Amino acid sequence: MELNQIIEQIKIKKSFLCVGLDSDIAKLPVHLQSNSRPVFEFNKAIIDATAPFSIAFKPNMAFYESRGLKGWQDLEDTVFYIKQNHPEIFVIADAKRGDIGNTSKMYAEAFFKQLNFDAITVAPYMGADSVLPFLEFSNKFVILLALTSNAGAADFQYFSGLNKKPLFSEVIEKSKGWGTKNNMMYVVGATKASMLLNIRQTAPDHFLLVPGVGAQGGSLEDVAKYGMTKDCGLIVNASRSILFASSGEDYMEAAKTEAKSMQQSMEKLLLDYKVI
Amino acid sequence: MELNQIIEQIKIKKSFLCVGLDSDIAKLPVHLQSNSRPVFEFNKAIIDATAPFSIAFKPNMAFYESRGLKGWQDLEDTVFYIKQNHPEIFVIADAKRGDIGNTSKMYAEAFFKQLNFDAITVAPYMGADSVLPFLEFSNKFVILLALTSNAGAADFQYFSGLNKKPLFSEVIEKSKGWGTKNNMMYVVGATKASMLLNIRQTAPDHFLLVPGVGAQGGSLEDVAKYGMTKDCGLIVNASRSILFASSGEDYMEAAKTEAKSMQQSMEKLLLDYKVI
Repeated sequence: MELNQIIEQIKIKKSFLCVGLDSDIAKLPVHLQSNSRPVFEFNKAIIDATAPFSIAFKPNMAFYESRGLKGWQDLEDTVFYIKQNHPEIFVIADAKRGDIGNTSKMYAEAFFKQLNFDAITVAPYMGADSVLPFLEFSNKFVILLALTSNAGAADFQYFSGLNKKPLFSEVIEKSKGWGTKNNMMYVVGATKASMLLNIRQTAPDHFLLVPGVGAQGGSLEDVAKYGMTKDCGLIVNASRSILFASSGEDYMEAAKTEAKSMQQSMEKLLLDYKVI
Repeated sequence: MELNQIIEQIKIKKSFLCVGLDSDIAKLPVHLQSNSRPVFEFNKAIIDATAPFSIAFKPNMAFYESRGLKGWQDLEDTVFYIKQNHPEIFVIADAKRGDIGNTSKMYAEAFFKQLNFDAITVAPYMGADSVLPFLEFSNKFVILLALTSNAGAADFQYFSGLNKKPLFSEVIEKSKGWGTKNNMMYVVGATKASMLLNIRQTAPDHFLLVPGVGAQGGSLEDVAKYGMTKDCGLIVNASRSILFASSGEDYMEAAKTEAKSMQQSMEKLLLDYKVI
């Protein structure tokens, strides 16, 4: 998928919502537990219910890997289902991979070819040669961790260089040259929305994947205020607040209501900031 | 597995060798390609050939994930095979995971419970709450990336703090308090052996997993000179130099010869530094 297709979808759907498919089998509605493939059934229902209000889906690898072969099968089938039924949607592997060159090349094969994802989240710690193999694929995106939404972000991401520049700024500055806004994005947590001002000085045009709205407490309005560009420039993720909006048989309807509510807030912001 | 069991094996086998199972299907001996499960057959042969000279095996996730369900099945069966046939061996998932708390918890389930690994490599970028869920399991190890063996290590791991302390030192100093030497180790590349002096000041007793000897060019002698402790304190990995020592039908014999040669060099070093 190309960046202009993502921007087009944002304008068509009046939304920059990504639904994170953190499909924890222990949290699924009780009535699904007797299904032969509860996670895949749940994902299909959530996908169909929220696709009209979303421009991206983001399966979180951990929730599939933790279930071994069954989980991997659910993951493969989920990506295939999205591609078949909602081909306009940008599909992100939340994998946070990154290794020496020959290994990152294998991860790129796994996620871009084997699983047909459009993008993958990558951890920057191992530097350029851990990221470049992912950038060799056309129409695919690396989404590099910059400033994450969790409390532990404070441990190293703010580590200050000699000129008081924090590590996350160094990551963005240095990595900008490895690709372009057409094949790279950055993860910036909504819980650090005010830092978006700083980040927009370094990366004025790159799209940002923003987790942390919803269960983690970040503010959508602040994210737009400090991070929105003329092309939107934001993909805001919500996972638990949509997936588990209800634990009953009405989970689809509840997820749809929550996704629609977020879309409506996003539409207002897209209008306010004159993206649409 | 407990640390004293690892130390005991080092003394019994007179070796601190880890064989990295980076079993790239494209590089397997030609005669195996017609086998119905070439990677699993290859792994079993390599494991049996090298186990007498090794104290650890380290499957590299990327080489399994890149083959989807078949790869995942090979991975599960490989770990099971090691545990059944060579229960004294320390089995490391080279996965370089790390995510927000609830997600790291799922990765810990995947690798420690679902797959029964003894240890997992973890990336530090997301901080304490991305690492702590792995440390909640008894008799399991987190092996945290500190200073990696690749060229890209220079991009961020040497990023200097206000007191000229590099990031990798900050990672070790801060993370030391998250666990103990009984459930944490660090990755330090053999290609940066001289930095081991610096690292031993911060982490005098922690075991280090050292990649980069062999195909990547690091020196085993330098690693021992700067990094060995009274309990050895080192697990040195070799992957390609052992796995692909021969591409012919004699690959088992060639792998055995290479592993034995490394064990003999290691035995000499263990004697020189009075570990045995």
